[in-house]
Amino acid sequence: MAKFISRRRFTIEWGHCDPAGIVFNSRFFEFFDWGTWLLFEAALGVKPSDLAAAFGIAGLPLVDAGARFLAPAGDVVELASHVSEFRRSSFDVEHRLLVGTTVAVEGRETRVWAARDPADPSKMRSQPIPAKVTARFHT
Amino acid sequence: MAKFISRRRFTIEWGHCDPAGIVFNSRFFEFFDWGTWLLFEAALGVKPSDLAAAFGIAGLPLVDAGARFLAPAGDVVELASHVSEFRRSSFDVEHRLLVGTTVAVEGRETRVWAARDPADPSKMRSQPIPAKVTARFHT
Amino acid sequence: MAKFISRRRFTIEWGHCDPAGIVFNSRFFEFFDWGTWLLFEAALGVKPSDLAAAFGIAGLPLVDAGARFLAPAGDVVELASHVSEFRRSSFDVEHRLLVGTTVAVEGRETRVWAARDPADPSKMRSQPIPAKVTARFHT
Amino acid sequence: MAKFISRRRFTIEWGHCDPAGIVFNSRFFEFFDWGTWLLFEAALGVKPSDLAAAFGIAGLPLVDAGARFLAPAGDVVELASHVSEFRRSSFDVEHRLLVGTTVAVEGRETRVWAARDPADPSKMRSQPIPAKVTARFHT
Repeated sequence: MAKFISRRRFTIEWGHCDPAGIVFNSRFFEFFDWGTWLLFEAALGVKPSDLAAAFGIAGLPLVDAGARFLAPAGDVVELASHVSEFRRSSFDVEHRLLVGTTVAVEGRETRVWAARDPADPSKMRSQPIPAKVTARFHT
Repeated sequence: MAKFISRRRFTIEWGHCDPAGIVFNSRFFEFFDWGTWLLFEAALGVKPSDLAAAFGIAGLPLVDAGARFLAPAGDVVELASHVSEFRRSSFDVEHRLLVGTTVAVEGRETRVWAARDPADPSKMRSQPIPAKVTARFHT
Repeated sequence: MAKFISRRRFTIEWGHCDPAGIVFNSRFFEFFDWGTWLLFEAALGVKPSDLAAAFGIAGLPLVDAGARFLAPAGDVVELASHVSEFRRSSFDVEHRLLVGTTVAVEGRETRVWAARDPADPSKMRSQPIPAKVTARFHT
Repeated sequence: MAKFISRRRFTIEWGHCDPAGIVFNSRFFEFFDWGTWLLFEAALGVKPSDLAAAFGIAGLPLVDAGARFLAPAGDVVELASHVSEFRRSSFDVEHRLLVGTTVAVEGRETRVWAARDPADPSKMRSQPIPAKVTARFHT
């Protein structure tokens, strides 16, 4: 059973770049976020805005993120994203931004499967990730 | 000798937030970048755009970054940034985003002191960080 | 009776700039949005996230926006924002971004005072702006 | 002779949206900027970063921009961009962001064909737009 990987090709824009002429670093974290939503939409068949209603959660809050910048990113890139590990109520997503076959940036996110706290709806509380969810991240 | 810490207070804006009503995560990495430039400007007395001319470098490319999201960030926040370690040609910056006295987000960046490669000006090459630079990051 | 003007000073960051070394143009519209929310918070004493509950509206959707770019913006700027006209259910906000005493950018926004449509909550419907609201935008 | 129109399809991302769940307005101006660079690259066969060297200019500074927001933008959109008028040294670009066949946002930009001022390279000076350039914007 292989892990389900979502892929998106897109163009690095002039407006993504900083005065040094390279992609401004926070943009990569924005791209990773795109990648995670795309991955979940592809695996679960549900848009980000419908995830809450479909699974009774309030979101997938990010608790940890990181990136290694290995080579310049430019022109057309491909973002490949997959869940590297599911735990009881949190999971890790790994992202690779490719320029051709070169990995330009590696990213990782740790997110929580979270619902509103019934005792205080302004807060989020982690929830066990349903088996029917994790099962969809294999092919 | 204490480490030199730069601090900036700023307001979290509606436009910084995502559909979940919280700060969109890539914004924090943008804030960290602000913090690093502010730190270097405060310590060295040189604006980001003049750093190259003042020290013969082409920039401070980011090679690794990470963040831990501990609590919601809102309203007025304070970003405290300092260099936690200088190595021969690279260094680590640590950032803490505070809401009151609570650390909402911890960030870290590893950057390189880099000049244009004389053999190929389209590339960057790490350079030894001058002692007169590192000396300015203590108080 | 003078118009109520809100003012904010902030720093143009390296990360706001594009490869030409100037502020990337969409950032100014982000600044204008900051200015409008600041203006309404200052005039009405209500945070953006509480505006809905306080006045029974769903938001202030933007229907038209524009800017004239007159001079480079850099370092510390001041954004001055005021409502130039209230109509029955819409209003115009004018923004000036100043570098010292020079107007670097002029902006304008037309927004609607809008509530959820009772017949279809996924849609917004313009509402008459209460007199108690408009009265707060004079000093 | 018809005007040359460049078109790009792309996905509206969760991270493009604000707490109201709609695309944050400054993003549209970022999309318009993408559209203009795409249009020039398609018409002239030159990347934004090579435009300067190819035509002896320093950039296409924006002097005026505007947008009308007509309908919500979501999911997959198409951005159609064309030059509506060339003048001696400036030109207008019109953008339409389509959701299916519905125009969600109309945008316009006025930009200048500008070189470094030989007397003061920190400044830009408008230049006559070469006929070989304008000729490429027809099909």
